[in-house]
Amino acid sequence: MTVDLAPPFPGEPARSSVKTAVPGPKSEALRARHQRHQDARTVHVYQDARRSVGNYLVDVDGNELLDLYGHIACVPIGYNHPDLTAAWKDGRFDWLMGYRPALGVAPPPEWVDLVEGTLMAVAPSGHTKVLTVTTGAEAVENAIKAAFAWKARRRRGGASWTDEDARLAMLNAQPHTNDMQVISFEGGFHGRTLGALSATRSKAIHKIDFPAFDWPVVPFPANRFPLADHTAENQAAEARALQSIEDLLVRDGQRVAALIVEPIQGEGGDRHASPEFFRALRALLTKHEVAFIVDEVQTGAGATGTFWAHEHWGLPEPPDLVTWSKKFQLGGVHLREEFMPAEAYRIFNTFLGDPLRAAQFRIIHDVICRDRLVEHTQRVGAYLLEQLSELVTRFPATFSQPRGQGTFAAIDARDGATRDRLLHDLRQRGVEAGGSGDRSIRFRPALVMAARHVDEAMQLFADSARAVG
Amino acid sequence: MTVDLAPPFPGEPARSSVKTAVPGPKSEALRARHQRHQDARTVHVYQDARRSVGNYLVDVDGNELLDLYGHIACVPIGYNHPDLTAAWKDGRFDWLMGYRPALGVAPPPEWVDLVEGTLMAVAPSGHTKVLTVTTGAEAVENAIKAAFAWKARRRRGGASWTDEDARLAMLNAQPHTNDMQVISFEGGFHGRTLGALSATRSKAIHKIDFPAFDWPVVPFPANRFPLADHTAENQAAEARALQSIEDLLVRDGQRVAALIVEPIQGEGGDRHASPEFFRALRALLTKHEVAFIVDEVQTGAGATGTFWAHEHWGLPEPPDLVTWSKKFQLGGVHLREEFMPAEAYRIFNTFLGDPLRAAQFRIIHDVICRDRLVEHTQRVGAYLLEQLSELVTRFPATFSQPRGQGTFAAIDARDGATRDRLLHDLRQRGVEAGGSGDRSIRFRPALVMAARHVDEAMQLFADSARAVG
Repeated sequence: MTVDLAPPFPGEPARSSVKTAVPGPKSEALRARHQRHQDARTVHVYQDARRSVGNYLVDVDGNELLDLYGHIACVPIGYNHPDLTAAWKDGRFDWLMGYRPALGVAPPPEWVDLVEGTLMAVAPSGHTKVLTVTTGAEAVENAIKAAFAWKARRRRGGASWTDEDARLAMLNAQPHTNDMQVISFEGGFHGRTLGALSATRSKAIHKIDFPAFDWPVVPFPANRFPLADHTAENQAAEARALQSIEDLLVRDGQRVAALIVEPIQGEGGDRHASPEFFRALRALLTKHEVAFIVDEVQTGAGATGTFWAHEHWGLPEPPDLVTWSKKFQLGGVHLREEFMPAEAYRIFNTFLGDPLRAAQFRIIHDVICRDRLVEHTQRVGAYLLEQLSELVTRFPATFSQPRGQGTFAAIDARDGATRDRLLHDLRQRGVEAGGSGDRSIRFRPALVMAARHVDEAMQLFADSARAVG
Repeated sequence: MTVDLAPPFPGEPARSSVKTAVPGPKSEALRARHQRHQDARTVHVYQDARRSVGNYLVDVDGNELLDLYGHIACVPIGYNHPDLTAAWKDGRFDWLMGYRPALGVAPPPEWVDLVEGTLMAVAPSGHTKVLTVTTGAEAVENAIKAAFAWKARRRRGGASWTDEDARLAMLNAQPHTNDMQVISFEGGFHGRTLGALSATRSKAIHKIDFPAFDWPVVPFPANRFPLADHTAENQAAEARALQSIEDLLVRDGQRVAALIVEPIQGEGGDRHASPEFFRALRALLTKHEVAFIVDEVQTGAGATGTFWAHEHWGLPEPPDLVTWSKKFQLGGVHLREEFMPAEAYRIFNTFLGDPLRAAQFRIIHDVICRDRLVEHTQRVGAYLLEQLSELVTRFPATFSQPRGQGTFAAIDARDGATRDRLLHDLRQRGVEAGGSGDRSIRFRPALVMAARHVDEAMQLFADSARAVG
């Protein structure tokens, strides 16, 4: 089946339509039930899973919302893509019907095909191994663990651990290990399990009352836009950030196992740095023997106009570990050969991912390749950026800082209160959008967003700016 | 559809059969391919997902193995149960075909039904809330976080945090928080993310080179069997363990947010304590205002002859938080009302579980209820224990310590080398089994194991003991 996706996505409505307040009465009735057992205050709307299509989230009140948020960047090829539903109906996932395997114990041969044919087909250049898990946080936890194992072995001059090390490990008292650190950036988000959370620096609500490892935080450049108007300022910010990392490594490099960074800070407010910055960072980490972990949980799988966002950097040497989840439907880490622990069972867990979600990703990946959705997203992204800049020109008191790579884009509102008012108003007009940082609106659409969806969004943003901006 | 499951499971072979060495040539060829990109050394065999049925794992070489291990306790109602495959074929999961939702953003109404009708239907007595995640490690991480939030608020006399607390949180430098601890037991296993791993105390290979929080470990009673022959010794061990916990709490109780314990230590070697021990533990933790987390990741969903293993204890007051995964097909935490953080977004992540796996668990739960599989497992478990005791009587130089609750059972080999030899030999005879601790063989069959499977297993264990024991 071949589908011309750009545009139209088969079955998509001509445009969004709103019948009730958003969320509507049916959503609110569900929230009241849901709240009895789970925290439902975070829910935007309850979604009609079957009727949602392409770029349009249909909610239980029948509102058809243009979705720019994509379940926090998790929808790769739109809702109910015909290839995905056909694969299900045609029985391509039937080998997964009857139990959930522990993939490290007795995987089916189909798993080996998925690893070889799909997960390794998207491996970053220079990466030969892949760890599979279920979520972004688990991906980060495992990347960090692999980096610690690598650094510890280097610090021992390549030797294995001693019996005394093993004894101390059982007491949480390995002195040279507890001493090791992971550097992360102000504004970075890497997940919420206690290891990943120790590297997360986006919002206090994520971290308050939870113990954290004594790991250092360094400033992120957070370039100002448009870039051409802020060259000197941005270069100075990047130089300061690099200097602060270098100072830390010169002082304490033996303790630092890894540095983790998002190509574009997502949760932290869509903050960017230049390819030059990342190339200099890569060189600095190589020099000090620190693992370079690029966290592509939110940027991976095409949204920035390349499959991996770090492809934009032109690195002479690849990242050491790359974490991913969201659009992939499961979680994982790609890594260079030398970062794979030598001993079995060091990086291990019961499920080691989910073959059903990986099988769905195979279909998604096939569609991305066949329909050239990464290149498509690059083109639509360029158009989106142009239109966001135009919006800022028209509404300078409301909007600023248009920025993005591909359709992974954002715009700032005047302040947090204005942003929140705009998000609420946009929903009433038929746009599902979400915030990032303290005042940004983030764009995380599916890769099937086309120019007409950009036009529709921009018109509704303009209406919203006039009404509540 | 009604199926008489005990026995026979429709389509099950009369008994195991072995055609090649196990693993056979096809498994080894797959391992060679798999090893190029993942660590495949841990794989027992590659499994034919479609042909496996009931209690029999069929591998790619056509060997039909009686499965006592169940993918590390993850197979609830046997392979390819007709209700599970019928639900798939009949379209009961079709609302899940077209995308994977972020359940905290825009869940479908079916999710609310699953929470109410299935996840809360199995809630431990006294529990009103449920957090959903994807794995056991994430369940433990979130239970621990909820306990920390609860304890921190108590230590502040019910007040919220200050701006200064929030500032320090962003620097990983909250003094009163980093000071807090979780107690766990020697031999306990709670997962491998860095928070969960700090509570894990089973094997050094899990912990070596990975930083850990400075949390205390206390002795586990590890009762000797048969119980009737070791009453005084076991009571003394339990008294010592309780005393050691009490000493710690008297000295440092304000720092301790939670204690986490498995009802039966799984990975650590199938170690048991008595209901009296757990009742005394509950009272001690209540007195010192420490959250009681019962980790039922491996014991939950019926294997011990009650739905939750902690039901065996007759607690006057329920556990505060109960973690689960494996047979549930996703992960989660049930909790008492007061342990749910008051503020939104403190316990949150992108996916918040997997509705497809939860929908499969609904079918599994329906089958468990309809076919009374928990009661069935209690009966089969009693028979299994009898037979394991008999095996020990017949082969006292090889086997000892028969023990278990329901079919969650184990037996010790003379030493680790003998255990490993037996496991290898058992596979050649048609039994898929796995170890726990340093010398135990653990039984983690599906709830559809019947008396005839016990008989078959015992005969093959006897053959194996004669050959290599």
